Amino acid sequence: MNTQKPRKVSEKLLLGPGPTPVESRVLRALSEPTLGHLDKDFIAIMDETRKLLQYVFQTDNELTVAMSGTGSAGMETACVNMIERGDKVIICSHGVFGERMIDVANRCGAEVVKVAAPMGKPIDPEDVRKAIKSNPDAKIIGIVHAETSTGVLQPLDDITKAAHEAGMHMIVDAVTSLGGVEVPVDRLSLDMVYSGSQKCLGCPPGLAPVTVGPKAVDRIKRRTHKVQSWYLDLTMIMRYWGEERFYHHTAPVNMIYGLNEALRIIAEEGLENRWLRHRKNAEALWAGLEGLGLKLLVDKEYRLPSLTSVLVPEGVDEVAVRKELMNEYSIEIGAGLGDLKGKILRIGLMGSGSRKENIVLFLAALGNVLRKQGFNADIGGALQAVEKVLS
Amino acid sequence: MNTQKPRKVSEKLLLGPGPTPVESRVLRALSEPTLGHLDKDFIAIMDETRKLLQYVFQTDNELTVAMSGTGSAGMETACVNMIERGDKVIICSHGVFGERMIDVANRCGAEVVKVAAPMGKPIDPEDVRKAIKSNPDAKIIGIVHAETSTGVLQPLDDITKAAHEAGMHMIVDAVTSLGGVEVPVDRLSLDMVYSGSQKCLGCPPGLAPVTVGPKAVDRIKRRTHKVQSWYLDLTMIMRYWGEERFYHHTAPVNMIYGLNEALRIIAEEGLENRWLRHRKNAEALWAGLEGLGLKLLVDKEYRLPSLTSVLVPEGVDEVAVRKELMNEYSIEIGAGLGDLKGKILRIGLMGSGSRKENIVLFLAALGNVLRKQGFNADIGGALQAVEKVLS
Repeated sequence: MNTQKPRKVSEKLLLGPGPTPVESRVLRALSEPTLGHLDKDFIAIMDETRKLLQYVFQTDNELTVAMSGTGSAGMETACVNMIERGDKVIICSHGVFGERMIDVANRCGAEVVKVAAPMGKPIDPEDVRKAIKSNPDAKIIGIVHAETSTGVLQPLDDITKAAHEAGMHMIVDAVTSLGGVEVPVDRLSLDMVYSGSQKCLGCPPGLAPVTVGPKAVDRIKRRTHKVQSWYLDLTMIMRYWGEERFYHHTAPVNMIYGLNEALRIIAEEGLENRWLRHRKNAEALWAGLEGLGLKLLVDKEYRLPSLTSVLVPEGVDEVAVRKELMNEYSIEIGAGLGDLKGKILRIGLMGSGSRKENIVLFLAALGNVLRKQGFNADIGGALQAVEKVLS
Repeated sequence: MNTQKPRKVSEKLLLGPGPTPVESRVLRALSEPTLGHLDKDFIAIMDETRKLLQYVFQTDNELTVAMSGTGSAGMETACVNMIERGDKVIICSHGVFGERMIDVANRCGAEVVKVAAPMGKPIDPEDVRKAIKSNPDAKIIGIVHAETSTGVLQPLDDITKAAHEAGMHMIVDAVTSLGGVEVPVDRLSLDMVYSGSQKCLGCPPGLAPVTVGPKAVDRIKRRTHKVQSWYLDLTMIMRYWGEERFYHHTAPVNMIYGLNEALRIIAEEGLENRWLRHRKNAEALWAGLEGLGLKLLVDKEYRLPSLTSVLVPEGVDEVAVRKELMNEYSIEIGAGLGDLKGKILRIGLMGSGSRKENIVLFLAALGNVLRKQGFNADIGGALQAVEKVLS
């Protein structure tokens, strides 16, 4: 086979829904020499990584690990471990990832009760309360904290309170919030929370951080049937990440180095500083997009700092916009998913990607591209609006 | 948090059952800039990686992909896609990984018929024929080609012939053979074969190459129920790796770079040359171990070139042997698993690890360690035996 051509991996500015920019420190960590998965030096790295994950999850949960798969494996981990065939679960869906959770739960044999909100809106806690009332036999409520398909940040306080009052467990998808937005695991006693390495954590895709609260651990230990996934079975994985170091599967050693380095960067910045930076830069982006003359999908109150959805103005070809941003400026942003396909663009400002120069470059580039398409974007106004927020 | 201490990742010589030594070219590839999982440059890398996987699998199977998990995720991929609840499957078990396949198949709701052989022996095709005869309603035969827990290379020709004559499909675990030993996917029309990146392929752990033959693809397409794992559902994943590029989950981009580079190295060496190198060096290791005065677990006819099991001589503390090899020589080898715990040591010569200098260093080191434990190892004799094989 002819493999003489070098791999073409030119630098792109990743401002889509993920993966997000990975700092060179993290990339370098990936290429450290591979150790055995039971090597004592690697075990030390796992231990530190677990402590750092507890820090970003703001939790003391002992069962806090990185699953050996991407964010979707995190979702599946939550479902296969928490659900037994025939269990009734309430799943809140306000976007593609809520729908995915329903699909995954169904495959676990769950009887799913769906609580829906339109894409771009958060779930109404009142609707959840009603569902709980009509389904007192439900065991679990699943919800997406940061809906990557819309850019909605779902408030969790009321819904969690209602769930716990009814003796139900909370499964929370924090794929696009962890490390960029507060995920109040211990403050709200969230029972099972998962994320992905390639969003606000600033690591390449391939790992799914998961944290499991004490009541969820009890539930899992009391299961009457084995977890349907051997690979994601936390009853075994807790023995590998725990004192026992029981061999389960071969951990993705080099990916763990990368996550370890990415988490160190977060600890150095400080989690609160990081949330503030994501919030401030998101506000600048929002002001800038509105300055260009665009409209945002989500009401300000529920906007996710890490991912912003902007409506495609009438007459503008969104495929051409994304193509030109890539071809002319090497900027990647995301398309709409599901019912929002063709209707929105999704802009991620996550991890090291959340910085002023990216916002300014992106708005200028987007303004230019829109003008070519006949949309009279006010680039000057947009940049002025950014300055106003960030000054 | 104090994260000022550098990560301790000193070089170790990985001569265990995996992970195996990773060449610096592959480590460097891991740290290339992260691209979007739908970026055209990344798609080109995926396409090349698929072609290279077809080459190492010796197959034209279009559905040849790298699953986003470790080798065990490959096993689970095979089972969840091929098995529906209530299906009867025959699983051959001659070690820990055969037992694992039974566990995974049970979790898929299979009715498992077990055909066993003692650890260290291969499965007898006659036993499989009998099982087929008594279970004509079985749909699938699962078998481990390279049993990592014992070092047995399972002949596949007769068993595959019997399976196909009965209209059954073959699931084959090639975790520790692919890239080091012939895996005759198309020659035998093996239906579903999986492997892991961290063995003979010489890549870090984290990916599971899988290839699916046309009859297995038919079977999967004709399923009456959804695959129980969303994450490993090939009916969706084939749409991402195929022309359509349908978004499923975010591929572990940087790990794919690493696998791509590891496969390029294999293509440059040539698959047949690589098999020959693994075979020749394994024979040298076997001769050397016997030269030291040790006995091997597996009869020569069924020995796996990539992994060798040697019996721990009476009076020798195998834990101390492994500890001293690590502390004094930075060499990692593997312990026995399951019933062979404490009874054998497992030595892997895989990928770039399969080379003369590693054999000589290892035998000299092992000889020294054994002598300290009162076992009169003939180091000179061992090295002479190695020279004889390799000259």
